[in-house]
Amino acid sequence: MKIVTRDKIVYSFSSQHKPAEHVAPKEKILLEMADAFGSQVSDKQTSIERLDWSKVNGATGPIFVNDTAPGDTLAVHIKQIRLPRRGIIAVIPNQGVLKGRTFKSAVKAVSIRDEQVHFEDDVKLKAKPMIGTIGVAPPKGKIPTGTLGRHGGNMDVKEMGVGATLYLPVFVEGALFAAGDLHAVQADGEVCVSAAEVLGEVLLSFDIVKGKSASWPVLETRESLAFLTCADSLDEASVLAVEAAVEALMREHNWNFEKAYMFASLAVDVKINQVVDPKKGVRAVVPKEFLTVESALGG
Amino acid sequence: MKIVTRDKIVYSFSSQHKPAEHVAPKEKILLEMADAFGSQVSDKQTSIERLDWSKVNGATGPIFVNDTAPGDTLAVHIKQIRLPRRGIIAVIPNQGVLKGRTFKSAVKAVSIRDEQVHFEDDVKLKAKPMIGTIGVAPPKGKIPTGTLGRHGGNMDVKEMGVGATLYLPVFVEGALFAAGDLHAVQADGEVCVSAAEVLGEVLLSFDIVKGKSASWPVLETRESLAFLTCADSLDEASVLAVEAAVEALMREHNWNFEKAYMFASLAVDVKINQVVDPKKGVRAVVPKEFLTVESALGG
Repeated sequence: MKIVTRDKIVYSFSSQHKPAEHVAPKEKILLEMADAFGSQVSDKQTSIERLDWSKVNGATGPIFVNDTAPGDTLAVHIKQIRLPRRGIIAVIPNQGVLKGRTFKSAVKAVSIRDEQVHFEDDVKLKAKPMIGTIGVAPPKGKIPTGTLGRHGGNMDVKEMGVGATLYLPVFVEGALFAAGDLHAVQADGEVCVSAAEVLGEVLLSFDIVKGKSASWPVLETRESLAFLTCADSLDEASVLAVEAAVEALMREHNWNFEKAYMFASLAVDVKINQVVDPKKGVRAVVPKEFLTVESALGG
Repeated sequence: MKIVTRDKIVYSFSSQHKPAEHVAPKEKILLEMADAFGSQVSDKQTSIERLDWSKVNGATGPIFVNDTAPGDTLAVHIKQIRLPRRGIIAVIPNQGVLKGRTFKSAVKAVSIRDEQVHFEDDVKLKAKPMIGTIGVAPPKGKIPTGTLGRHGGNMDVKEMGVGATLYLPVFVEGALFAAGDLHAVQADGEVCVSAAEVLGEVLLSFDIVKGKSASWPVLETRESLAFLTCADSLDEASVLAVEAAVEALMREHNWNFEKAYMFASLAVDVKINQVVDPKKGVRAVVPKEFLTVESALGG
């Protein structure tokens, strides 16, 4: 099995990056990941104000996936996530949903054991490991790993965990996949701008869907297919997500627009991924009994 | 048991309305409800363009709840919802999330049987009956039943179903409660602007929490307490919902702001109620293991 160590790190998605590793479809690959703070933060020593921001939001990679070309879809299977025994959460003034309030920067360590994240001695949550940043190189230029778009990126979708498959449109030869920003647990919204940030190891494999390319990333879980969109506001991102879901339902059922639109109102949940980055992320979630991967990925 | 028939209908929440009925706390009361279209629409005859909009979005009531005064909280227990065998969905040009697209008005009937909503012969969903409009009179003036606010109103929260308790701030003597806009099923977002609209019967009872008044409606289900807010955009509504949740967590755990804000990022889901009315609705959902009703309702 190939292993990509956590020193193989990029801070942007770009066709210009030299691959850190090459893999074939179906081959397993293990990515070591730094945490989103580049492992600079602890609750004891580093003050958040002295952070070197050039070392934040790194992603491990890029991985060149053999036989992948522009116009294909890259299917990313998340097979295992191994968490450490400790995570970090931080609040930073002027950041997050409540940035309008006056507050101090603060850092808190949480311990992770028995599949629980221990926030306080008497306050613990079930760990739900997930990958915050996951994507491919855009057609040209470079996109910072801290942001998101049609190429994926810092989408912060809480279902991006073990057992899920992410479908990403491929824009360059080999896709140039990278991932980072691992979270032990995060709620919809990621409201304070950080989650339980952890380093860790992620086991992946890839498949290629030749000649199909969805307009937005699509996330498959056991229950649903979700269209992952983003825009300057949640309201605008909702339009894009619903549009993608309605068009997929039209393809699947051979419905006209009006019928698919009605059905979406009954069956498609519009959910918030994160509301704290300059681009807000939304997902339109369609139960799998009503939609196949094939229809989800396009005509 | 008292019964309020569906001819006892208001089109606004207002202290000026004469009560349709008086009830004591803990007394059961059955509300008959028209559907949101005032039962004017069928898929056979009525065209949506000829709708009399003055008869749309009615709410049954108002109910004067004895011993309730401004500054209290009204607890509304939803005990039973009885659905009919048929519902209506409609799409209307220039309405809903995809109002930017060109499409025709359309009406569709769905049949409801065996706790399923039959959209097509081979496409059915589990019925999840819920009340779209539910609220009390505001301190002054009148608020159309088609909109929403701190008094409740057309919140369109899909968990507003059997077993849930809604806590509403009381602004006038007797609260002057009313409810309508029953849905057999609706997804988060209510994206086409209507759900599976049904008439029906709702069995309720009330409790009063004296001298406590939350700043926003709070919805208790078996699993969670949700703060129901609204604003001109989802982004703005999210700020209000997260603020309400964070302040409640501060009260509950005696945490400072920074700690409660961090915890919310891990544990509080920000969800979309509806994104299709002029005021968008959002809820911040806190699992009940981390919050009591008492802390949720205020200091």
